This record gives sequence, C-alpha cells and structure tokens, in this order.
Amino acid sequence: MDRQRQILVVGLGLIGGSLALALQGFEDYLVVGGVRSRSTYQKAVERRVAQKVTFHPEEELEKSDVVILCQDPQGIMDFLRDHREKFRPGSLVLDVCGIKTAIMEAADCLPEGVDFIGCHPMAGKEVSGIDHAEATLFRNTHFIITPRADSTPEHLELLSRMAAHCQFRDVVSTTCARHDGMIAYTSQLMHVIALSVCDSEQLFTCMGFEGGSFRDCTRVAALDVPLWTQLFTLNAPALTRVVEELEGRLRAYRQAIAAGDREALAAMLEHAAGRKKQRNFEQARGDDVHVGF
Amino acid sequence: MDRQRQILVVGLGLIGGSLALALQGFEDYLVVGGVRSRSTYQKAVERRVAQKVTFHPEEELEKSDVVILCQDPQGIMDFLRDHREKFRPGSLVLDVCGIKTAIMEAADCLPEGVDFIGCHPMAGKEVSGIDHAEATLFRNTHFIITPRADSTPEHLELLSRMAAHCQFRDVVSTTCARHDGMIAYTSQLMHVIALSVCDSEQLFTCMGFEGGSFRDCTRVAALDVPLWTQLFTLNAPALTRVVEELEGRLRAYRQAIAAGDREALAAMLEHAAGRKKQRNFEQARGDDVHVGF
Repeated sequence: MDRQRQILVVGLGLIGGSLALALQGFEDYLVVGGVRSRSTYQKAVERRVAQKVTFHPEEELEKSDVVILCQDPQGIMDFLRDHREKFRPGSLVLDVCGIKTAIMEAADCLPEGVDFIGCHPMAGKEVSGIDHAEATLFRNTHFIITPRADSTPEHLELLSRMAAHCQFRDVVSTTCARHDGMIAYTSQLMHVIALSVCDSEQLFTCMGFEGGSFRDCTRVAALDVPLWTQLFTLNAPALTRVVEELEGRLRAYRQAIAAGDREALAAMLEHAAGRKKQRNFEQARGDDVHVGF
Repeated sequence: MDRQRQILVVGLGLIGGSLALALQGFEDYLVVGGVRSRSTYQKAVERRVAQKVTFHPEEELEKSDVVILCQDPQGIMDFLRDHREKFRPGSLVLDVCGIKTAIMEAADCLPEGVDFIGCHPMAGKEVSGIDHAEATLFRNTHFIITPRADSTPEHLELLSRMAAHCQFRDVVSTTCARHDGMIAYTSQLMHVIALSVCDSEQLFTCMGFEGGSFRDCTRVAALDVPLWTQLFTLNAPALTRVVEELEGRLRAYRQAIAAGDREALAAMLEHAAGRKKQRNFEQARGDDVHVGF
C-alpha cells in the first residue's frame, strides 16, 4: 500500500487556518495542522479546520511531503532554525509571509534536497486568528511565489495545482528583492498611511463626515501589531524609501493647493487621475497576470 | 385647486441625477431637471430621471418650492449670482457641493425670504455623469446640512422628510467651518493620498502584487479633474493643514522604521491600531448619528 501523503500547516491563524480549510480534498493529501494555544486547538478541532491537529508539528515533519509555515516572520525563522534536520528529504517547504528576502535567507539553513519556495498569498482581512479563517479567502487573489534557482519543476507544478485548488486567481513568480520592493509600495505603505490617518486627532470628532474613501483607506489600520512591527522592520530599506517618496508627493500637492494656481493644480490632477484610469484599463484587460521575473 | 408643488434639480450628473431619481414619488412634488448638454438631456428623458427636463432651469425658478443646485462649485456660485432675483419667495434652496463656506457665502446674494441650506450628501462613486446615477446611491449614507441661523423649522422639517425618502442614514447638522475642516480630513485628504500613490513610478510595474488595501486606497484617484481642482482650491487652508499633518506623521513612522527599534515602533502601531479599533467600536455602537454643532 502506498504511504499516505501529507500536508502540514504550521500555525492555524487567519492565513494558515484558511489554507488548511481550502486545501481539504486536494488530491489524496491528508491535511495536518500545528497549533500552539489550547484555544486554537479546540476551535480547529470543532471546525474541522484540519483532519488532524497537533501541538507538536515538528514531530510531523518526517511524514510531511509539503510543509506550509504560517507563523509570524520571527516564528517561521525560529522554526526553520530549530527543526532544520527534521524535514523530510525531497519535501516541499513553503511559507506565507509578507516579506521574502529575510525568510529566504533563513531558509538557507535547510539541508540539501529540501526545497523551499517562498510564497505570499495576497489575501487578508483586517482581523486575525482562526475565528476568521475561511476556505474561500483566496478566491480571485494573486499567489506570489519566489522559487530558488534549484526548485524542481515537480514542486512548482505541485504548487500550481495547490493554488488552483485554493481558487487563487493566478500564480505570480518573482524574485525576493522585487517582491519586497513591490510589497513595500502596494501593501506596507497602505498600512503606514492608514495608521498615520488614524493618528489624527480628528479621527473621533469626524464621525458623520466620512464616506467610502475614508472607510476604505483606514480599514487596515486595526492591524496585528506584533506581526506588522516585524514586517515593517524586516523590510525597512524598501519601506522607508516609498514612505519618503510619498511624503514628497504630498508636499508637492500641498504647495500647489496653497499656491491657488488652478491650472497648475488641474494639470497635476489630470496626470495622476489619467494614470489611475490607464491602470484600471490595463487591469480590466487582464495584463496583471503576466508579471514574472 | 392647489398649485402643483415642484422640486427643481439643476444639473443631472451623478449626484443630481441620483437625487432626481430618488426624489420621485416624494409627497406630491413634481421633479424637474435642468441640464446643459444635449446628451444628458436625451439620457435623462430616456431613463425618466425627472418628470420634466429642460435646458432653461432658470425659467422654472418661480414655480419651484425647492431648488437643488447640483452643478460643480463654480457653476453653483455663478447660477446663484446670475438668477438671484428669480427664486420664488419662501422657497427652499439647497446645494450638494463638497465644500460649504464658499457656497454659503455666495448664497448670501439671495433675496430675503429665500431660505438657503447648504447640503452635502456623503455619497459618490469614482465615476461621474448621469450614466452612473441611481436612485439607491444615498442608501445608508450621511446627509450633512449647514443651515443658516434663520432657516425655518418648516424647511428643516421638509429637508428631513426628503432625506428619509432618499433613504439617507441620518441628517447631520453642522456649521460651514466645521464641515470644511472635517471634509478636508475625511474626504479631500483621501483623494490627495490616492493621487500621490498613483504618481509613483511603481503604479504600472506593481501589477500582480496588489491586494485589497491598494485597490481601496487608490480607488478614488480616477477623479473628475475640474471638480476636484475647484474643491481643493476652495478649501485650501483646511486641506493644506491636514496634508502637512499627514506628512509629519508619515515622517515619524519612517524614522521609527529606519531606526529599527522594534519596541518603539510597536508602541506607535499599538497606539494607532488601538484608536482604529476604538473607532470601529464606537461606530458599531452607532455613536456617529449624534454629531451636531
């Protein structure tokens, strides 16, 4: 009889819990979940988030063909270092962390023959934890991967099938450096903006004056503090660069508004609004599925 | 027989067109729409946006018990100045403009006995024009009003009934100065942020790396340039103040991230995220319906 194939998801929070749920029924794999807290254990068992739940995921490593590390960045790096000898030879190891360079460097400690591919599902919510996990979280979102030069075609193929099963919109393959530079702009900067807007003393006095744009822009400010502190500091060079650029552009708008020159201001608005419209157009055409190295 | 009562909506763009649609069936009022372009006229007639559509709204003024000015800010100010003698004595005149001080000052030219109440429906879309107008646009949004000291109780009562008919969530009464200060923060700043983010050279290279926060934050950048140029310049003092404050807060985050002091950064994130959570809590409790002077 063939050995039972197994996917181990370490950490059943929002992303890990959702992945475990989404992966159920994937080919003939058994989905095993690793947890730390008794409360997550209980919820995972009650909601059948995984077919087996354990407090000792490291003991499952030798039986696991695929391991998905879903802890926070520091937790992932610690787990790799502490258990590097226990991973099954020939297995595929993934993570789901929002920054890739630091994680991929940490994964260099794995023995030869263990294939680590960095992953970043571009899905999330403004809330965290297993309570909010759901099988449909990834539907129509991008699944970014940063393979190593020696990742095997078989593993890349397996990863694609897993992504399709989870209903990701597409798999976007890129380098760590490019990923971290882009994420600084598309995700981390949005969080820094939301936090900065919420720091204003007007946050509580403005109730009744907000429309959709305010709710949309500030939505992500209610973030998981330990997680985002790690994400920000582990990507400091790229993130500080995009924040500084934004400060400069805000200053330019402020100066144009203060100057009261309607023509000059209109030209600036026309430029930016035109770029956004062009972007919407290209997106509607589906151009964003072609991103690669 | 009683005279037919009439509401005149001047300008059938996104907001005016939606208001005309939403106001149909309001008590026994006839809804008349005023347009400038032949294309809007045709669409208004085809979609029955108003019961009567005219190229000469000024000729309807003497028959209109309620006039709602839905042009851009300059268009509203010009219309008030050009036709001030034609408004019906005892009538109620409203506007829907996103800034109030400049509009209320322009409305001072109206003869005594014509009651002008500034209005700002906190609804919109990232697209404009009659094509996107719909009767349900205002459902569950705030209707901000800035009455004058001598606005009559009858007119305020009429305005409340109209707002209820359009399915607004609530009517929020405030002063022009407070409105413009708040709107600079909750709405105009969000638009300046979205424009500034879209000015980045990464806008087109980042496709495939964006999640919900990026789409939400940049959504409003595809704005109506002439309209927003007016809104920004007519509210320059309040707007430049909030932009400058935001620049300072972004700089503070950037410096904390660059310093790499995780504890200090975590404290900043905890502060802002806590404020956002508290804000969500108060909003869920419905506190924002109590805003007043």
